[in-house]
Amino acid sequence: MYDKIISDNDCNSALKVQDAIEQPNQVNKDFFKQYSKKRRLEVNDYVDGILNKDRTILSKAITLVESSLYKHQEMAQQIIERCLPYAGKSIRLGITGVPGVGKSTTIDVLGKSLTNTGHKVAVLAIDPSSERSKGSILGDKTRMEELSTDPNAFIRPSPSAGSLGGVARKTREIIILCEAAGFDVVIVETVGVGQSETVAHSMVDFFLLLQLANAGDELQGIKRGIMEMADAISINKAEGENKQKAEIAAGQYRNALHLFPISESGWTPIVFTCSAYSKEGIDTIWETVNNYVILTKANGYFYTKRNQQNLKILSETIDSHLKEKFYTHPTVKQRILEIRQDILDNKISAYVAAQSLIDEYFNNIEKKNK
Amino acid sequence: MYDKIISDNDCNSALKVQDAIEQPNQVNKDFFKQYSKKRRLEVNDYVDGILNKDRTILSKAITLVESSLYKHQEMAQQIIERCLPYAGKSIRLGITGVPGVGKSTTIDVLGKSLTNTGHKVAVLAIDPSSERSKGSILGDKTRMEELSTDPNAFIRPSPSAGSLGGVARKTREIIILCEAAGFDVVIVETVGVGQSETVAHSMVDFFLLLQLANAGDELQGIKRGIMEMADAISINKAEGENKQKAEIAAGQYRNALHLFPISESGWTPIVFTCSAYSKEGIDTIWETVNNYVILTKANGYFYTKRNQQNLKILSETIDSHLKEKFYTHPTVKQRILEIRQDILDNKISAYVAAQSLIDEYFNNIEKKNK
Repeated sequence: MYDKIISDNDCNSALKVQDAIEQPNQVNKDFFKQYSKKRRLEVNDYVDGILNKDRTILSKAITLVESSLYKHQEMAQQIIERCLPYAGKSIRLGITGVPGVGKSTTIDVLGKSLTNTGHKVAVLAIDPSSERSKGSILGDKTRMEELSTDPNAFIRPSPSAGSLGGVARKTREIIILCEAAGFDVVIVETVGVGQSETVAHSMVDFFLLLQLANAGDELQGIKRGIMEMADAISINKAEGENKQKAEIAAGQYRNALHLFPISESGWTPIVFTCSAYSKEGIDTIWETVNNYVILTKANGYFYTKRNQQNLKILSETIDSHLKEKFYTHPTVKQRILEIRQDILDNKISAYVAAQSLIDEYFNNIEKKNK
Repeated sequence: MYDKIISDNDCNSALKVQDAIEQPNQVNKDFFKQYSKKRRLEVNDYVDGILNKDRTILSKAITLVESSLYKHQEMAQQIIERCLPYAGKSIRLGITGVPGVGKSTTIDVLGKSLTNTGHKVAVLAIDPSSERSKGSILGDKTRMEELSTDPNAFIRPSPSAGSLGGVARKTREIIILCEAAGFDVVIVETVGVGQSETVAHSMVDFFLLLQLANAGDELQGIKRGIMEMADAISINKAEGENKQKAEIAAGQYRNALHLFPISESGWTPIVFTCSAYSKEGIDTIWETVNNYVILTKANGYFYTKRNQQNLKILSETIDSHLKEKFYTHPTVKQRILEIRQDILDNKISAYVAAQSLIDEYFNNIEKKNK
């Protein structure tokens, strides 16, 4: 019964239950009636549930990760630390492309094909602009008709609101939980128009760019630099009349990629056509990912890249903490606008301005504590 | 006489003179004899000299900028601040390409053509790997036969040694001095194999990538991402038998660039062929730069980009100071290796590790001062 009511369809229901237990006056009486006898879940319960592949507990743990309440974050961090040793064993696949390119349908067909061959597939999304209520990317799970009812698939919309950094962190933590819960393929979907695809790229093993045949028109939405991040490009909607155009576009992309240098991985990006409608080319995606994994595990790049990604989180997080402390300091807040203007007016060099602001900042930190 | 002896050919001679005046016992007696009667140059003398377009003084000021001695840096910063209001009026052109692509000969012919039409051209280089004594990029000025003897051209090798950040800063400061000295075209040459081209790109208005016809082979040396930075690509050495191959390559690059989205500047990158040998196509470079400047001055991007570059220096310099303070702090130095290993062993999440190190760091700064 517990499982049925708190499905992962309703991302907030788990917290409602928590709140129901803690604040009985403020909540839905029905919830309270059903759960009042059930003790509150502790970190141990979450970890055990996740390792026992309990989707409902996984879903509740993710809700903790996404929560901004201090007590939820405290529990979430403990759960993540305990799950870490069991994580890392999936293939992490990033999929990006402009809205309308067919990301959801591609993931739906690809995911179904994977679960049919024994895989367990988690689908996450990064979209900092999303607000769940407004039907964001993946927010409407009906876009993945097949996968959304598949017991071996787990679909989770983008953590809502917040900064891109915040969304990125939450998504990385959710990947850990999903992997600990036995999902061996994690697909991270992102819309390739802002910074989110760079963030997605930084947390996956393989990065697939979906494109449409009429390059030049549709492509304007894609950010510069994405093409060079792609390990493969799939020209989508290669069906019916569009098939030939897709093949021509694929040829153009192959020629273009040929001009790029070989990447550090030793992998040469592949271009192919694909149709989620006729289901042709979908298998090529997974074959390509597999070939990539075989090559990069053999040459060690697979592990090097994961290690680099983890250490990069360390340095980026340190960096963002240092900057936050600096830019929110009263002295800095008071002086920064004036200094920026002086630089724009060529009154002071940016180097000298930076040094003087840094000196003031550290003097102030020290003075405060004398 | 003064002018003749301290030519800008010998980058260190100006400092030798300074040292000769200050430390008569330790230096070349001839130098001392010649200059002992001349008073030491003050900031005012440098600024006046630069604004009066005195190449020798300019050269000496650059030597101060490049010096790592505190007293030299102190003077250099004062000179730069005083020159700032007179800077910024040149067109800054970045030129990159792998070794052997013909950067020096292209700059030689282009520069000569510019001085012939009344321009004053400064040629700088960014090459952090360079050591002057070992004949680095531009170190051997004989590579630019025409330009090196041209009174309206000023060629300066890369600031030697040091970090890329240090070289970048020095080059930016040298640009300011050159502009204040009346140079209206500043060419920044860089070898496109490391990070230096990104740094060069961040200080110029227009970025030209030189390529050779046999793409795919030679191109392996070019870093991923450079193509998307280019405002124009010149296929070099388009002469004799190579001409047709160069045209074919140009076509391939045009097709490839067509797949990229239009940049923020509103400018569509141009691809052309060029031969420094037959001097065909060299004029196209400057025409293209001019068209770019006309377009981006009209739409405002030219100034937006310069402002962005200046403010980026501010934030990057602050950032690097904050990081340096952090990573050189004894607590951090002591703990960081262990923490990195724990992350690689999946014992702790990188986010949690970062937070705990940051807390320790700030606690320690405060404790120290209590």
